[in-house]
This record gives sequence, structure tokens and C-alpha cells, in this order.
Amino acid sequence: MKDEDFKALEFIDGRLRVIDQRELPEKLEYMDLSTAEEVSEAIKTMVVRGAPAIGGAAGYGVYFALLEAEGNKSVFERLCAMIRSSRPTAVNLMWAVDRVMRKAAASGYDKEAVLSEASLILEEDRAMNHKLSEIGVSVIRKGDTILTHCNAGALATCGWGTALGVIKEAHYRGMDIHVYADETRPLFQGARLTAWELVRAGIPSTLIPDSAAASLIRDGKIDLIILGADRITANGDVANKLGTFMLSVIAKEYGVPFYSVAPTSTIDFSMRDGKDIPIEERNPDEVRRPGGVLIAPEEIEIYNPAFDVTPHANITGIITEKGIIYPPFDKNIERIRRGEEL
Amino acid sequence: MKDEDFKALEFIDGRLRVIDQRELPEKLEYMDLSTAEEVSEAIKTMVVRGAPAIGGAAGYGVYFALLEAEGNKSVFERLCAMIRSSRPTAVNLMWAVDRVMRKAAASGYDKEAVLSEASLILEEDRAMNHKLSEIGVSVIRKGDTILTHCNAGALATCGWGTALGVIKEAHYRGMDIHVYADETRPLFQGARLTAWELVRAGIPSTLIPDSAAASLIRDGKIDLIILGADRITANGDVANKLGTFMLSVIAKEYGVPFYSVAPTSTIDFSMRDGKDIPIEERNPDEVRRPGGVLIAPEEIEIYNPAFDVTPHANITGIITEKGIIYPPFDKNIERIRRGEEL
Repeated sequence: MKDEDFKALEFIDGRLRVIDQRELPEKLEYMDLSTAEEVSEAIKTMVVRGAPAIGGAAGYGVYFALLEAEGNKSVFERLCAMIRSSRPTAVNLMWAVDRVMRKAAASGYDKEAVLSEASLILEEDRAMNHKLSEIGVSVIRKGDTILTHCNAGALATCGWGTALGVIKEAHYRGMDIHVYADETRPLFQGARLTAWELVRAGIPSTLIPDSAAASLIRDGKIDLIILGADRITANGDVANKLGTFMLSVIAKEYGVPFYSVAPTSTIDFSMRDGKDIPIEERNPDEVRRPGGVLIAPEEIEIYNPAFDVTPHANITGIITEKGIIYPPFDKNIERIRRGEEL
Repeated sequence: MKDEDFKALEFIDGRLRVIDQRELPEKLEYMDLSTAEEVSEAIKTMVVRGAPAIGGAAGYGVYFALLEAEGNKSVFERLCAMIRSSRPTAVNLMWAVDRVMRKAAASGYDKEAVLSEASLILEEDRAMNHKLSEIGVSVIRKGDTILTHCNAGALATCGWGTALGVIKEAHYRGMDIHVYADETRPLFQGARLTAWELVRAGIPSTLIPDSAAASLIRDGKIDLIILGADRITANGDVANKLGTFMLSVIAKEYGVPFYSVAPTSTIDFSMRDGKDIPIEERNPDEVRRPGGVLIAPEEIEIYNPAFDVTPHANITGIITEKGIIYPPFDKNIERIRRGEEL
């Protein structure tokens, strides 16, 4: 295991420095955020993306909100609500805002305490990712070919990564793996971000259009599928980047193991199943103008959901920092909620 | 039924005038072809694409080859072989070259006879498409929502279209349909060409990323799937644009009818099943630089297959100008080969 030489999120001199992920892989550019609104905008516009990274940024957003509110509690709460609603699907966002707000209240709105809590989210997330990677590597055998989707790497988290963390762990242990990365339309996070991380880590890998995965799975070219999660419900259903559900159906049909990887902060214990998860619809121009180039007539209507929901029946296991959750998912997720061992 | 106001292929003043499909939907531009090599290049670079349109263009390519050979039979055959190998998957290409070459030999290399044969392919294809559309419309019910993939419209054929022909037929009959069009990575034929044809025909429609189809199918938003074919083998397996196989698995899982539409010239009676169909791998830059914009690191390997194979077990029926082929596909395709009624 070795840590990456870049940080998606870093708190420096009173500002949150983030990699502008829209500019990769062409440019590694940073952006400094210092207000609640800037954090919210960075999340909305996907300067910062990936469920755990969104949570990490949001924690600092609450800190900035506290500074801006200057003691006015209703201003503070309004700014926090704005951050909380920046994107609807990833539960880590709500989880992080609520956590730092609770700390604010408990500490009598103490700035240092709130900043510490935000920093703690970052540290904990990075540590959890290393932990779950050490746990998750057990599902990989030497020489395996692994398919992943979207980006669940260091860029999507507060460091190291979830699905890509497990994959990097296997690589650095010399397990001789090969990775297929789906490009992930419409925003190409697989091509732009995962491919960039794979190349930097020196992992042998191949980029494919999303539609190419199905034949590779059927033809026995994929040993297992490992990807992230934006929200996991109490029954083990998983919301993740658009395209995940499709992969899960193909994987099940052809008997290929399918693992979701996420810290337990991604579990929404309050939601019974995946059909209640709000699915964000994003700007049609993400589909109509990839890279700014028009590819479709202006007149045609576009449907652009950012996520889809994979039913737990299609999932082999959910890899977390507390262990791998296997079926029956509802019972085992309940054990996690109660703080019991898996 | 009404014919479209543009022609993908038209023979005018001794040249083959084709729409440069790479420029759509921004520009409706024509290109004039007058040599065998120009026809071959236009097919390779996808100025002309779609199995029946490729066949139509190739027929004129053989005519140009005859003019260029100036009576030298080995030059003629070399030029014809060049056209025949422009792309490997669509069988209509080989079928059309062979057909016009046979006519050349049978007519004592008579230029007028060869030109007539090339023109006949165009006329027949257009007529067959109208015929199969009238037959195929029977699978659509009033108010249906139909998913299609890639472009199997007037642009993909010598006129009217196959899958999109059936869809237009339903629309012009006032059947109140709605169409979802997959954008079809990597070359976006769904976004660039199908969306353009749908808008021109005034058909209510929605464009989606390829990965969005799976949830729509599961959620009961799609009544049936209708798409084209590049090669159909004797057992009913279908090679078609990358992404077709994935759709077929999802459709089968959720019980949504899945129809392939093609003239019988798309059937390769000599090939027993789909695993023998050569699948063209195209330039990685189609994936790496959509619209010329770099979206992936230069260092990462890319796998870019243009087609995939859908097993006949996933197909509800194959709509042809001779009727709808239902299972058992091998027996019914054999009847077509023998010239028997379906």
C-alpha cells in the first residue's frame, strides 16, 4: 500500500483546497474554497464529486457557514441547509453536514471544535478506506481481471479510495491484476478520473465504452466487478453512478461476483429500500455537449439521471471498514446499525 | 407513411452523392464519390454507415471499379476485394459486392448492366424497408414507448430505414408512440443521427445515455425494443452495434419484447452461429477523443469493439421484408433460405 501523491481535498491556511476534477486528465488544477456557498457550488458543479469526498468537503462547508453566520443561528442553519441540498443522492453529504452541525451545537458553536470535527471526517475517511481495502482485498485472487465503473478512487474520497482502494491494495501486494474501467457516460469519470488514477498507480488497465462491458462479462474476461456506492439502504440496495444497475444484471446472469465498496457512513439506515432514494437528474447538456461539442439536435428532449439503484439481490457483497456485508443484507446491516460484529 | 426529404445515397451525374454522416446533426453536408477507393474510404471512415447503406454504396463502388479497370479483370477484382474488406462485420457489404460482381461476369462486364444492378440494390432496399415496416408495425400497440439503439433509419439504409422505418410507420399511422433513443457510444449515432431523424419526422422522443436504458426497462417505462442488425447467422444470432447485447439481457430479464429489424440480405446463411462473426475493433481515439476533445490519459489502453453479438435466445423476433421470423429461428431461417413461406 502506498498513498497517492495528490489530495482531492486539503485544508490549508483557512481554505479548503480541492482538485478541480472537471479539468482532469488534461490539467491538475486546484481551487480554493472559503465560503459555504463556494463549497455548495463546487459540489453542485462537480468540481468535487464522489460520495465520500462530497461529505468531506461539506464538513468544511459547515465550518465556513459558522464563520459567516457570525453568531446568527438562523443564518448558520440556512447556510447548512443550502450545503445539505447541493446534491440529493449521496447520503454522505447529509451525514457529514448533520455530524458537524451536531458538533457545533454540542460545543456551543465553538469554531475550533467545528473545524476539528470537519478535519476528523477527512482523517477518518482516509483511514477507513485503508481499512476496507485491507478487508476487501480478500475477494481478489492473484491474476484476476477486475471491472470497475465511474470513479471510486482517491479523487472520490478524502484519500486512497473505496473500490479503487481495494484494487490498488491488490496491485501493491503484487497480485498481478488487470483492470477494465468503464468510461462512464455522460461525464466520463471512468475515462477522466479512474483511468488517470490507474495510470498514476501503474496498474495494467484498459478503458472501455460502458456498453462493451456486457460482452466481456459473458465471454469470461471479467473475474469480478468492484465499484462504489452513493447510498446504501437498510435492505442492501445500492444507489451508485448510472450504469451500475445494468452491470449488476449482466453479472448476475453470467455468475460474476459483484461487490460494492463504501464506508458505513454511506448506509442510510432510515431508508428501507432503494426505491425511495431520490435520483438526481442533471443538466441535459451533459449528454448533449460532451466536452462542449454538440452531438444531438437542440430540439430533442434528454433524460439524464446521474444514478441508478441496484437491488441487493444482484449484489454479492458490500465491502466496508467494518467487514464485508453478505446476504441476508437486511439482518447484517441491522447488526452494523446496532454496533455488533458482522 | 411518407418518404424522408433527404437521401443518404443518390447516384447523380455519374457520381454517388452521399450525406457525410460524420457532420450531422450540425451540418447536412454531401460528398461526391467517383472511384472505388473513395467508396471504400467513405465506408471505412463512416461517412456512410449502417449495414444496408454500406451495401448500397458498395454496389456503386463495384461499378466505379469496372470503369477504372478498363477491361483488366485482375484490377477489377483487386478493387472489388478492397471494397469488400472496407469493414468486416456487416454482411450486406460482402453480399452487395458479390451480387454486382456476379452481374458483371454474367453480362460480359457490361457497364450499363452493372450500373443497373447497383441502382437496383438501392431501389430494392428502399422498397424492402417499406415492406418490412408495414409488416413490423404489427408488433406495436397504440401508445407504446419504444427503445431503439444506434441508427437504423433512412441514413443507415438506401432509404426509409429498418428499425426506424417500423417506428416511423407506427408514427405516421397515428399510433401515438414515444421513442427513447440510446446515444450509442462511442460514435453517438443515436444522438447524432437517430435523434436528428426523429426530430425531422416529428416523433415524440427522448435521448438517453446508453446506461440509462436498464432502469427504464426495469421500471416498466419501455414497452418494446426495436433495433437493426449488421449480420444475422443461420441460428438467429444477431451482430449489431455495441450495446445491443447488453439491452437484450436486460430486456429478457424484465420480459420486454426485443425485435431486430433487417432485410433478408443481412442473413449470412453460411454462418452457423454468432460466435464466428468477425467483430471490428476501431480506432481508440473514437473513445479517447469524442468530438475531438481528449477525455482520457494518452497512456491508457483502450478496447473499442464496434459491434456485439446477441444470442437468438434473447430475441423475440426478427422483422424482415418476408415476414417476422420467430423461434425456432434455425428452422425458420432455413425456410427463408429455401424460398419457402414463413
